[in-house]
Parts: sequence; structure tokens; C-alpha cells
Amino acid sequence: MNTILIGIAGGSGSGKTTLADRLVESFGQEEVSILRHDSYYRRHDELTYEERTKLNYDSPEAYETELLCKHIEMLKQGKPVDVPVYDFTVHNRSDQTERVDPAPVIVLEGILIFADPRLLSLMDIKIYVDTDADERILRRLRRDVRDRGRSIDSVIGQYLGTVKPMHELYVEPSKRAADIIVPRGGENTVALEMLIDRVRKQLKK
Amino acid sequence: MNTILIGIAGGSGSGKTTLADRLVESFGQEEVSILRHDSYYRRHDELTYEERTKLNYDSPEAYETELLCKHIEMLKQGKPVDVPVYDFTVHNRSDQTERVDPAPVIVLEGILIFADPRLLSLMDIKIYVDTDADERILRRLRRDVRDRGRSIDSVIGQYLGTVKPMHELYVEPSKRAADIIVPRGGENTVALEMLIDRVRKQLKK
Repeated sequence: MNTILIGIAGGSGSGKTTLADRLVESFGQEEVSILRHDSYYRRHDELTYEERTKLNYDSPEAYETELLCKHIEMLKQGKPVDVPVYDFTVHNRSDQTERVDPAPVIVLEGILIFADPRLLSLMDIKIYVDTDADERILRRLRRDVRDRGRSIDSVIGQYLGTVKPMHELYVEPSKRAADIIVPRGGENTVALEMLIDRVRKQLKK
Repeated sequence: MNTILIGIAGGSGSGKTTLADRLVESFGQEEVSILRHDSYYRRHDELTYEERTKLNYDSPEAYETELLCKHIEMLKQGKPVDVPVYDFTVHNRSDQTERVDPAPVIVLEGILIFADPRLLSLMDIKIYVDTDADERILRRLRRDVRDRGRSIDSVIGQYLGTVKPMHELYVEPSKRAADIIVPRGGENTVALEMLIDRVRKQLKK
């Protein structure tokens, strides 16, 4: 199969997940598969729950990227893969996996996917969703407080403690690797349409 | 005719002209027309050559944008237009004009096209070519010294005197209006290909 890998990166709250989801929803499952870097957070059975909550989840070492690379290679060879399912409630990998089938187009979504040279070398199209820091934290705050039941103070603490410094250290500089930068994320219909066209062209091949 | 206007903006030396030219060259003249904001530099017969050399050519007022808007409207109505020809050697508009015919796709290229709300409202797709300031000045310096016979000191003087302050005042903030940001300009083949696909789709309509 002639498979292309489209990477969609961007900071937390940038709207990259919305953009990736809208792109994938425009096509059938047999046409476009999606992988998320977050599924590959490392397993930490050796730590207590308390210790796991203190880990830095915004650094490249938090991810088992070598497994993700292996899975991408397998999908490109036309083989299905069993993607780990991460359990955010216990901050650890669960024992479940989710089957992802090969497809002509694979979308890979994640904050730090452009910060890893192994992943970069596997991508055919690199999209960076660029949204101002104030809008990003507001989106993250609303999501974490409303949908995940967290306190405002805990969101602010995590943001200033690790999310922001890691963004400046890893995410923002990785923008340089992008082929195309999309402002305003999921609401950017012009960019979404161009991406849809690009995928459609690939599917015709 | 169902015409779309694609705006390509970006700082001096960003590679926006290269990107616009490569896009236009991929199609026939009856398919894609090009307009350049620089063609619409105002006529200044009332000033001496010496006085004209001292004008600020990097500010929105330097352009007869009202005429450009009128021309875009005419092209969208299927009427040909006579674009002014600017004579950079005498810093004034010449008496020549160049005929531009209507086409399903019009590309508009210029540093300040996103800084004018009238132009913005006419554009269907807004592309900003984003290149680091150091690379931009090096490209401009080489072009002006090698191709236009200017001294290094005069290029530096103009750059620090008007080009850079006007870039920071008008060009850089206008990036916010972009639908898509293209890093590295003309050498960015992934972005160029996506633009070509988008134009091709329009031509099929």
C-alpha cells in the first residue's frame, strides 16, 4: 500500500485534536486511520499513584515513541497494530489495546511529535496548529475544570509548573519542522478544506 | 465567472514572490492570473527624483490600493484590466500598462496586502510566507547588491531605516489574518503542492 503519514502537532489547547478529528471524520475508516501520541504514554507499574501524578507528562521521555515508530512502520507495511490504551484516571497504561487497521492515509496527532527526529523522518506532511498562549490555556482550563472535574488551582499549577516550560523548551521550537502552520486550529475551515483536498488526492492514487 | 482570489503575503525577502510565481507557472495564463501590489505604487510626478527616493515605500499609504481593489472587482466580473507598470529605476509609475485578463483563479502577491481591510475582504484564501528576519535580509541584500547594483551600505540603511520598522508595524501583525502560514517560502514543496491541488480543484468547478 502507498501510505502517507500526516503529522498534526501544536501546543496543549491549540485545537490540533479538533483539526485532526475533523479531517479524519471527513473520510471512512478504511481510508484514514488515526494515531495519537498520548496513547503511547509509558507504563509505570513500578510507581505508586501518588508518584505517577508527579511525573512530567509534557516531555518527550514520557512517551514510548519507539513503539509508536514500530506501529507506523507496520501500518505502512499493511499490517494492523494494537495500540495501547492509556488510562488518564490512574495515570498509567491500561491492559487494553485498540486495533488500528492500515489505511492509505494515517494521521498522527500529538503535542511533541515534531520534537522527535525518528517520528519526523516518517512523516510526509507536517502541520503545526498555532494558537496564542492565552487562548490555549483558556481552552485547557475550561476542558479540565468542566469535563475532568479538576480545580482551577490545580490546572494553573500544572500549567505554570510543567506545561508552559515544556512548551517553550520543546513544542514551540519544533514548529520549525512544519511544512504548513495553521492558525486558529479546528475553526480554520480554509486550512481544513485544503487538508481534505490533499487526502482526497492521495486516496485517488 | 466563479473567480477566487488567493493572497500571498510575507515580509521582504520571505520567498513569497517565488511561491506565487511557482504556483502561477504550474497553470496556463487562461487559468491563473497574477496581480502584484507593487505595480500599484502611487504616481509622484509632483516630486523630484531626489524627493521620491526619500519616500517610505514600506507603508500602506505608498500604494494606490483603491485602484487595485477596483481591478480585482473588474476581474471578478470577467473584465480585463490595465495594470500600471512601475519604474523602479526612477521611483515612479511609468506611462505603460500591462493587460491582465480575467481567470478562474487570481493570485495577489505583496508585502502589505493583509494590512488593508478592503483587500482582505476580497480574498478567499490568505497565505502568509514566514521566513526568519536574518534569512530575509540576506536574500534581500544579495538581490539588491548583485542584481540591482546597490551598495551594501545603502541596502543596510534602507533596511534599518524603513523596511524593518514597517515590517514590525504592519507586516508581522498582519500575519494574524492568514488562513495558512508557509515557512521557508519558495522551497517549501509540500505547501506548494497543496496550493496547486487547491487551485486545480477550483479549475474543475
